[in-house]
Amino acid sequence: MLHLYHLKNSRSFRIVWLLEELKLHYPIDYQLHTIDRDSKTLLAPESLTEIHPMGKAPILLDDTLAVGEQSMAESAAIIEYLLTNYDTKMQFRPSEAKLWRDYVYWLHFAEGTLMPPLVMGLILRKSVKKSPWFVKPVAKKFTTAINHAVLAKNITKALAMIETTLDKQPWLAERFSAADIQMYLAVYGAKLANKITSNHPNIQAWLVRCEQRAAFVRAKELAGEPL
Amino acid sequence: MLHLYHLKNSRSFRIVWLLEELKLHYPIDYQLHTIDRDSKTLLAPESLTEIHPMGKAPILLDDTLAVGEQSMAESAAIIEYLLTNYDTKMQFRPSEAKLWRDYVYWLHFAEGTLMPPLVMGLILRKSVKKSPWFVKPVAKKFTTAINHAVLAKNITKALAMIETTLDKQPWLAERFSAADIQMYLAVYGAKLANKITSNHPNIQAWLVRCEQRAAFVRAKELAGEPL
Repeated sequence: MLHLYHLKNSRSFRIVWLLEELKLHYPIDYQLHTIDRDSKTLLAPESLTEIHPMGKAPILLDDTLAVGEQSMAESAAIIEYLLTNYDTKMQFRPSEAKLWRDYVYWLHFAEGTLMPPLVMGLILRKSVKKSPWFVKPVAKKFTTAINHAVLAKNITKALAMIETTLDKQPWLAERFSAADIQMYLAVYGAKLANKITSNHPNIQAWLVRCEQRAAFVRAKELAGEPL
Repeated sequence: MLHLYHLKNSRSFRIVWLLEELKLHYPIDYQLHTIDRDSKTLLAPESLTEIHPMGKAPILLDDTLAVGEQSMAESAAIIEYLLTNYDTKMQFRPSEAKLWRDYVYWLHFAEGTLMPPLVMGLILRKSVKKSPWFVKPVAKKFTTAINHAVLAKNITKALAMIETTLDKQPWLAERFSAADIQMYLAVYGAKLANKITSNHPNIQAWLVRCEQRAAFVRAKELAGEPL
């Protein structure tokens, strides 16, 4: 039996979606442990460190593995584990050399390139909001400068590259793959941060294509909104 | 022929190291294109976007591939590509299920979990330094709060987990693997940010073990300091 620890509105949505794509069904093939964010910090509750030392979702627990080796973390590593063990027909990880390269690229790109500036922007915005009134104006100016000098530039480049890719093909590695699942959450995060504009018609259409998949709809019923 | 675009003191050091571990030798098997950082921004020069649209190092170009598919980016994706094509004896990517899980975990952990708070800390420190004098005191207070609330906690947890792992085994996936190469750069970044302390004797010993490998020494001769 698989156990997925899912933090509401978080990266772990990806794993629910992939489990459903793989036709592993709740509650027959996996248990879903949905966890609320800490009401004060809005982060994962400290108790999650009991399941995995980093205390972050997703955590996948496979109780057929040896004791002490059952809990796994990092979205993309969990994706690779599930594909290796359950994607017997190689439906979600292409085997052709070119498509495999694209798959691996986008799988790493999501957390390696696109998420860091988005998360940094989010942390800065939240921190400005929480600042005392006499700090706020300077903090706002300070974070705006960082946004201009570093974050916006990287996010714009990343989205332009995704847009170009999706102009040539419907999915990031031509056919639908787990790279689309890994990337969806990052791109959806960009959308919530108002970074997806009229310059990105292909990205907008791809987001809709993702959201219309039966497994995505089912994941949303089970796990709630992706972010 | 392989061409590696290496930005000085950057993540692309990893790829030089891996190429040398694979006994692909400069200048017979690969060309090394070493690029200086922009003297003003200290980032990669804008010209790198001509090789790959993100304009970040490492970029690996394999001219045996079809035109338009030759350039690859993302450290870990390049690592996976090199291993798939040149690590014929599976020396650097273990095939045993447990070790493979550890390998995949650390491969993603480096950029997915450890690097983002380190890079954010670096950007904040640099931005405070560049602030005008009348902004600096408030900016310092503001960034210290972020460090305490978010960054330090995550870095501490990550290092503690690495330390525990290296207490049981000499390398992150038991035997030396490309996961050590991918992680070295992140952990070395933590060291330069003074995060490695007397609480981390195993990490310190592992850093030395990495640095003593013949391929690492050769990479340093060719590519300069890792960071």
